[in-house]
Amino acid sequence: MPKKYLPLADNVVVKPGEQEEVSKGGIFLPDTAKERPKEGKVLAVGPGRVGDDGKKVPMELKVGDMVVYRSYAGMELKDGDEELLILRESEVLAKVTD
Amino acid sequence: MPKKYLPLADNVVVKPGEQEEVSKGGIFLPDTAKERPKEGKVLAVGPGRVGDDGKKVPMELKVGDMVVYRSYAGMELKDGDEELLILRESEVLAKVTD
Amino acid sequence: MPKKYLPLADNVVVKPGEQEEVSKGGIFLPDTAKERPKEGKVLAVGPGRVGDDGKKVPMELKVGDMVVYRSYAGMELKDGDEELLILRESEVLAKVTD
Amino acid sequence: MPKKYLPLADNVVVKPGEQEEVSKGGIFLPDTAKERPKEGKVLAVGPGRVGDDGKKVPMELKVGDMVVYRSYAGMELKDGDEELLILRESEVLAKVTD
Amino acid sequence: MPKKYLPLADNVVVKPGEQEEVSKGGIFLPDTAKERPKEGKVLAVGPGRVGDDGKKVPMELKVGDMVVYRSYAGMELKDGDEELLILRESEVLAKVTD
Amino acid sequence: MPKKYLPLADNVVVKPGEQEEVSKGGIFLPDTAKERPKEGKVLAVGPGRVGDDGKKVPMELKVGDMVVYRSYAGMELKDGDEELLILRESEVLAKVTD
Amino acid sequence: MPKKYLPLADNVVVKPGEQEEVSKGGIFLPDTAKERPKEGKVLAVGPGRVGDDGKKVPMELKVGDMVVYRSYAGMELKDGDEELLILRESEVLAKVTD
Repeated sequence: MPKKYLPLADNVVVKPGEQEEVSKGGIFLPDTAKERPKEGKVLAVGPGRVGDDGKKVPMELKVGDMVVYRSYAGMELKDGDEELLILRESEVLAKVTD
Repeated sequence: MPKKYLPLADNVVVKPGEQEEVSKGGIFLPDTAKERPKEGKVLAVGPGRVGDDGKKVPMELKVGDMVVYRSYAGMELKDGDEELLILRESEVLAKVTD
Repeated sequence: MPKKYLPLADNVVVKPGEQEEVSKGGIFLPDTAKERPKEGKVLAVGPGRVGDDGKKVPMELKVGDMVVYRSYAGMELKDGDEELLILRESEVLAKVTD
Repeated sequence: MPKKYLPLADNVVVKPGEQEEVSKGGIFLPDTAKERPKEGKVLAVGPGRVGDDGKKVPMELKVGDMVVYRSYAGMELKDGDEELLILRESEVLAKVTD
Repeated sequence: MPKKYLPLADNVVVKPGEQEEVSKGGIFLPDTAKERPKEGKVLAVGPGRVGDDGKKVPMELKVGDMVVYRSYAGMELKDGDEELLILRESEVLAKVTD
Repeated sequence: MPKKYLPLADNVVVKPGEQEEVSKGGIFLPDTAKERPKEGKVLAVGPGRVGDDGKKVPMELKVGDMVVYRSYAGMELKDGDEELLILRESEVLAKVTD
Repeated sequence: MPKKYLPLADNVVVKPGEQEEVSKGGIFLPDTAKERPKEGKVLAVGPGRVGDDGKKVPMELKVGDMVVYRSYAGMELKDGDEELLILRESEVLAKVTD
């Protein structure tokens, strides 16, 4: 049976998507040295960090959101054969819709 | 169909403009070592970061603004063939009008 | 008789679990350079750190929780023959259930 | 037609003045290794940064002020043939009057 | 006559205990590179640091507490022949009872 | 005509005094590696920085004060033939009276 | 006539005491690499720093206190033939009584 992760604070658990590093017509040609965010799906969301005023800051993300996140962010969790990522919401840049 | 990005917090999505690195009469002659901001157009704007008082700080930018932003700022997003940039509003320096 | 630790502030005492570094079918093949959190069981929980508003921030963890925590976090405590770890709650990423 | 810059937050646009690096009687003789601020004229002023209390901090500078600013501060903006500088008000040290 | 130290702010004076670096059955075999906290007894406690709200944050420790503290923390005080340590309460990790 | 500097925020303009690096009886013998503050006279004082509560923090210094300041602090301003220094009030350590 | 220093903010002026680096029975044998605080007497005390709430934080020290302070802290002031030290109250660790 797979494990279930309940993130603390403002952590979120993300299942990384298949990353397309190669473009349709051939070889991938990076044209800059900038970091490229990665895509994934939100599987679990923490209750939010406690702000300076002592109250929980509400999370912007919810389970099921497709997101892009900083490529170097987070740590890997193993759930059976599945590789998950746990990272802070502040390392998630945007929600994505097709 | 192109993807749509909904930035979190104080992130904005910018479409970089054509950068004119060459002057009209010939070769580009940089006269200092200072960073040169780049121009672009705002495509999407986050809801604002949460301030120390627990309230959202309103964004100064809106969709359609032409802006200059720090040249090393942000990360690249790919939207079909289009190269976009996601960066924080604090890395945008000014709005530009012709 | 074993010692008993009463953590200060937002410290927690964790008993590290058996770490499975080898997969079922054979050799462990790490596919990334990302940090891998470790699992353990919470044995003791501090009263919480004092926030900027002068009040204690309540702890999210309680004794008995199974958790994953940053692998480089914490310091080792020796309790007889037992090796324990003391770390801050902010270094704990998630609670785990099977 | 020249571009017009509307700075965000606490940014200001400055037109750098002619810097006199050579003294009247001959060669410039620097007597210390300290940074030397530069002079310029304020062309545009942002609305002010948002303080910790969620309110805009009023700007001290206004358009037309002659100022000295940290010599390594800011980034260059090009406005036609003109070289401008964009920097934060906190990098401006003083107003100057003759 | 021995000196008496009255710590300022959130400092505490600790008398380091005898550190058992060797295990019962023989040579000490460290199994990790993690820092190992040390044990000691609290001899004096400061009045507490002043928090962001201008009020003193009450100390958790009191004279006589047995504690574990970060091994690299603090500075040495000499009180006659006795070697004491002065460190911040935040460098003390837990109280210990046998 | 000499320039007049009106410092912003918590900046102050100081006229450095004659530094006596040589003692009366002979060669200067530094006995430590510690930084030695320098003396000067306050010529102009800013209105004060804006604190976290959105209010100006009153300045402790006023024009005419003799002060000692961190020797590596500040930047040089040229006012005709005169070399002045601009630095933050927090880099001034004490007022001096003979 | 000796100079008089009036410290700003939370600075204090200390007259360093005679440091006993040699123990009674012979050579000084340092047994650790930890920093050893030094002793001195408080000669002057600033009015206190301004806290985040815009109010002055009262000083814990007063003129005449014997103190131990971080050995690397502070800067040297010369008052005639006398070597004084100016440092922040937070670099003073404890008051000392014999």
